[in-house]
Amino acid sequence: MKALRFHGNKDLRLDDIPIPEVKKGYVKVKPAWAGICGTDLHEYLIGPMLIPTTAHKITGEKVPVGIGHEMSGLVEEVGDGVEHYKVGDRVVLEPIIYDGTCGACQAGSFNSCYSNGFIGISGFGGAFSEHIVVEENYLNHLPDNVSMRTGALVEPLAVAMRAIANGNVQASDTVLILGGGPIGLAITLCLRSIGVKNIILSEMAAKRKTLALEMGASHVLDPSKDDVVARTLELCEGAGGVDVAFECAGVQPAVDVAFRTVRARGTIVGVSVWEGPASLDINKLVFRERRYVGTAAPEHKDFEAVLKALKEERLKPDGLVTKTVGIHEIEQEGYKSLIEDKANHAKVLVEVGGG
Amino acid sequence: MKALRFHGNKDLRLDDIPIPEVKKGYVKVKPAWAGICGTDLHEYLIGPMLIPTTAHKITGEKVPVGIGHEMSGLVEEVGDGVEHYKVGDRVVLEPIIYDGTCGACQAGSFNSCYSNGFIGISGFGGAFSEHIVVEENYLNHLPDNVSMRTGALVEPLAVAMRAIANGNVQASDTVLILGGGPIGLAITLCLRSIGVKNIILSEMAAKRKTLALEMGASHVLDPSKDDVVARTLELCEGAGGVDVAFECAGVQPAVDVAFRTVRARGTIVGVSVWEGPASLDINKLVFRERRYVGTAAPEHKDFEAVLKALKEERLKPDGLVTKTVGIHEIEQEGYKSLIEDKANHAKVLVEVGGG
Ligand SMILES: [Zn+2]
Ligand SMILES: [Zn+2]
Repeated sequence: MKALRFHGNKDLRLDDIPIPEVKKGYVKVKPAWAGICGTDLHEYLIGPMLIPTTAHKITGEKVPVGIGHEMSGLVEEVGDGVEHYKVGDRVVLEPIIYDGTCGACQAGSFNSCYSNGFIGISGFGGAFSEHIVVEENYLNHLPDNVSMRTGALVEPLAVAMRAIANGNVQASDTVLILGGGPIGLAITLCLRSIGVKNIILSEMAAKRKTLALEMGASHVLDPSKDDVVARTLELCEGAGGVDVAFECAGVQPAVDVAFRTVRARGTIVGVSVWEGPASLDINKLVFRERRYVGTAAPEHKDFEAVLKALKEERLKPDGLVTKTVGIHEIEQEGYKSLIEDKANHAKVLVEVGGG
Repeated sequence: MKALRFHGNKDLRLDDIPIPEVKKGYVKVKPAWAGICGTDLHEYLIGPMLIPTTAHKITGEKVPVGIGHEMSGLVEEVGDGVEHYKVGDRVVLEPIIYDGTCGACQAGSFNSCYSNGFIGISGFGGAFSEHIVVEENYLNHLPDNVSMRTGALVEPLAVAMRAIANGNVQASDTVLILGGGPIGLAITLCLRSIGVKNIILSEMAAKRKTLALEMGASHVLDPSKDDVVARTLELCEGAGGVDVAFECAGVQPAVDVAFRTVRARGTIVGVSVWEGPASLDINKLVFRERRYVGTAAPEHKDFEAVLKALKEERLKPDGLVTKTVGIHEIEQEGYKSLIEDKANHAKVLVEVGGG
């Protein structure tokens, strides 16, 4: 079968590899649609970082590995003992891999497993592939009213839903989102799906500013033109700041704005991955009892929250998709758009098998 | 009356000033014992920082102001309308001042009031004084079984109790305390008072290491000799780190150790005031969903928690006191010991009126 694999920095190859065997408890899925994630770009440009170059502790695999982890697909075959899936089922991939035995896992913090990994990053195949064979616990059913194309957005939406849960956002809260990339936009959508109305988003790129309004942001500020701190505080009308800020940019100015716009005892949610250290005025945490909370990969309950919102049509995320490409165009059309024309794109989807 | 007042950087004077009037709702208290706080030293050495040099928003006062805010005393006179105090009552000062009207106060975050202040720092008199006249809501009753001398420790213990509450520490938790100064030691004591047994404290100074063990630390590590990260992780026996770390040192190495020793989804409580920015590896928050939580001045419920623990004799803090001085010796004996012989001191108390 054809499978896009990561061989090394800026080295993706559409390899011809054997179809994995469908063992007991495994399900063979034909990927329909799959998204290109920020992590994929990161690995491509400055990696391998997460992609293992020596045997991964859980998967035992190393480069080359299959990539793509934001995926919908159709069940093609089921192994003995598979309980929840049958041929023809429409599914989405839940890619987090954990050992179940470390201190984090024993405390129930599966997404923070000290050996963690992801299908499509750490081994066990990838979504940019004609087939993928996984244990059934890595799958979720896609509701009938949700298209396969939309299904490929479930994983990034689950990232957003988890960030919102970690920020303990309430429907009446005023929220500031720093960065209107795919995650910032997904957070906007998910906030609307749980009833949050006061959503301020800070972003410079024209296309993303338009998207932010379409996704439901109540105010879009442009740090190249607006005084984001002053405008945000004005919009909070005397409360002294927003209840929660989502740092989705991974750059120093975003953290600085967050610490100056979150109210006393408010929360800053760290969503983005950083390429270097940040400088922090700790007194801004201490004197006003603010909290800076990290959020990581989504777990099962986050997928459930997204699938429920999609089923109930509280979440309509198709506007996140700014481009679709074929499996032969992933690097030249998909990655390149997100790297060289970043300001004009949010989510690029790959039509793998389609459907 | 004699009152020690802050006139400016390294300028404390034992002034002779009029006794304030006892107005309606006010209580006149004769200070018995009062502690010298880290904030007092900070203001003396590099201030004025918190001490107002222009009219404070709430007190309306500016330098010179009375100092001392960790205080026990005896009620000498009560104004009309005072409901909860009578002459002869033994009391402790609850020094936080808030406006009650700002966004923080309206949300119930009184200690984070955007105009906040403290008696003994921002005006309304100070504890290093023959008399102090305050509204009755700034006082708490000292239980009969607690000495006046111990009463002067209630405020710093309330700081510790609040930090513990903000860290959401459970009795079964393993805790790391970075820094064995007065607050680190008070946190150790307060943790023991709520049943926490696994307390690791990191400190270099010999005297403070001894005190930490006396206060109830189960392990004391010395960063000049021990690999604090490795030893702490060993002591956590596979859990992957401590549940909560208290950063009580205000220096970069303490934050670095905290981020490397707290388990996935664990909490770092920022207790200390910093003199400059810290450098932070945000990915250590993000990938393991750690949280960095600030803690500020204690509020009424924190005083209540300390007074209850003292009454029930779960908290015996007298060992924190390494020196006592008279009102004429505050600067030369008290401040100087804490500045020049810091390593050999925890809490220095001033015997103001005694009792
Ligand atoms: Zn694990
Ligand atoms: Zn206030």
